[in-house]
Amino acid sequence: MKIIDGKKISQEIKNELRNKLSSLKKDNIEPGLATILVGDNPASKVYVSSKIKTCNELGIKSFSNNLPETTTSKRIIELIQELNNNNQVNGILLQLPLPKGIDADKCLEAISPLKDVDGLHPHSLGQLYSMKTWDEIVDKKIFIPCTPLGIITLLKKYNIEISGKKAVVIGRSNLVGKPIAMLLLAHNATVTMAHSRTKEIEKISKEADILVAAIGKERFVNKNFVKEGAVVIDVGTNRTPQGLCGDVDFDSVKDIASYITPSPGGVGPMTITMLMQNTMLANAKQRDMLERV
Amino acid sequence: MKIIDGKKISQEIKNELRNKLSSLKKDNIEPGLATILVGDNPASKVYVSSKIKTCNELGIKSFSNNLPETTTSKRIIELIQELNNNNQVNGILLQLPLPKGIDADKCLEAISPLKDVDGLHPHSLGQLYSMKTWDEIVDKKIFIPCTPLGIITLLKKYNIEISGKKAVVIGRSNLVGKPIAMLLLAHNATVTMAHSRTKEIEKISKEADILVAAIGKERFVNKNFVKEGAVVIDVGTNRTPQGLCGDVDFDSVKDIASYITPSPGGVGPMTITMLMQNTMLANAKQRDMLERV
Repeated sequence: MKIIDGKKISQEIKNELRNKLSSLKKDNIEPGLATILVGDNPASKVYVSSKIKTCNELGIKSFSNNLPETTTSKRIIELIQELNNNNQVNGILLQLPLPKGIDADKCLEAISPLKDVDGLHPHSLGQLYSMKTWDEIVDKKIFIPCTPLGIITLLKKYNIEISGKKAVVIGRSNLVGKPIAMLLLAHNATVTMAHSRTKEIEKISKEADILVAAIGKERFVNKNFVKEGAVVIDVGTNRTPQGLCGDVDFDSVKDIASYITPSPGGVGPMTITMLMQNTMLANAKQRDMLERV
Repeated sequence: MKIIDGKKISQEIKNELRNKLSSLKKDNIEPGLATILVGDNPASKVYVSSKIKTCNELGIKSFSNNLPETTTSKRIIELIQELNNNNQVNGILLQLPLPKGIDADKCLEAISPLKDVDGLHPHSLGQLYSMKTWDEIVDKKIFIPCTPLGIITLLKKYNIEISGKKAVVIGRSNLVGKPIAMLLLAHNATVTMAHSRTKEIEKISKEADILVAAIGKERFVNKNFVKEGAVVIDVGTNRTPQGLCGDVDFDSVKDIASYITPSPGGVGPMTITMLMQNTMLANAKQRDMLERV
């Protein structure tokens, strides 16, 4: 069994991004990311400050916007429109979840599809899901939500073959389950989307060459779910009294899987790095647009 | 084995739509559909004229636009923009395929998402794929591409249970395969997306409670693909020297399946009817918008 070291890969990619950013700077190109945090959710605060910290580390300009819990959808949308019109801002990250009473869909839709670095705008998702191949996704500079992009990047870094393989994705969220299923499909896997209403989920999972657990239940996937030699991707990060743990029971599965992402230390560290990569993609897309005018 | 009679269901729905249209007319509401046909593709001509004919039968205003083979993408986009601004036009149908050299994606994206009755705009697809349940899709008046909408409608009319079932979709086109997979998922099926690169496709298909064949290969699915009692949906319409035939070998499968759509006469007749239904949905969406202003 080989451990897929998300922390290491993430660091390598950050080093590459830092180099690219410093050479862009010589041409006076400085990618910028705006963050919007609404309210006082402690986990959201931690995420946003990590994102800003990573921007600073790599040399991406950050524009942080903190709004009180009582902010209206209208005010958030106005702010997004200002950021859409601000040429220094290439990407806009609206931290989810938003406080109750705010129309998250409407706010997300207000983000310019050119600045949608989280890839959650319906336009980005529609484009992503319409692409036939990975090459098309890359060529057309389609935004991919950060967590699934991190997973695909890990699989590629470890040279794990996807084409022709059976993949099973447990969980069907818009942030992870659905987009990773579509990305695996674009890589020519045969993809099964399983979820809480799936019957015989162990049996179905056990057919997978690549098993993605993104269901948000601690240690849900144990050895009964895993075929000998399968690649197991654990997207879960669950808080337990004993600390963080994934959706996969690592100890139960580790001797069966060929590759496995630990949690923490697997998919998690990739997410912010992919946000940085998407911000640079947004910058490149916006420069393309200017050139075409 | 029960035959799913698409012709009959389609006729019933058309009757209902005709009644609704005549009661809308009393309130001076007249839904309108604009068609755009570019070039001389004989099959496209036939499709467009059937669509216009059905509009006339039901009492939907039709606005037909025929452009020469040599039309530029720019001219098509200009026409779409005119139609976007025309209040009498609720839906815009751009007949595909477009002649070579025309950027179909750009033209489709020019259609206002409010008038996207074919459901192929990235914004519509992104919205559709983001919805968690069928009820959400209906409540939010999301456009669904006509063929997959026809399939779901047939399953519902025959009271075929989808939730908790295993569904296998063979074929991953943007017109049929992907959207029907996502619609079955929204109905809580466990969904496998299979395709030309799938290994052991017979074995995988044979696990399906609901098998959708949308691969465009005549009589590809035979009895080796079908579990006893499965529901078989044949989306194919292939031209052969002996006439039209589906992707399913009807004679081979008919004694194994519990329900089967014939081809022709199954899914095919539903498509235009669903376009009419989407045009009425577009009209309702646009009236909603006016009320909200």
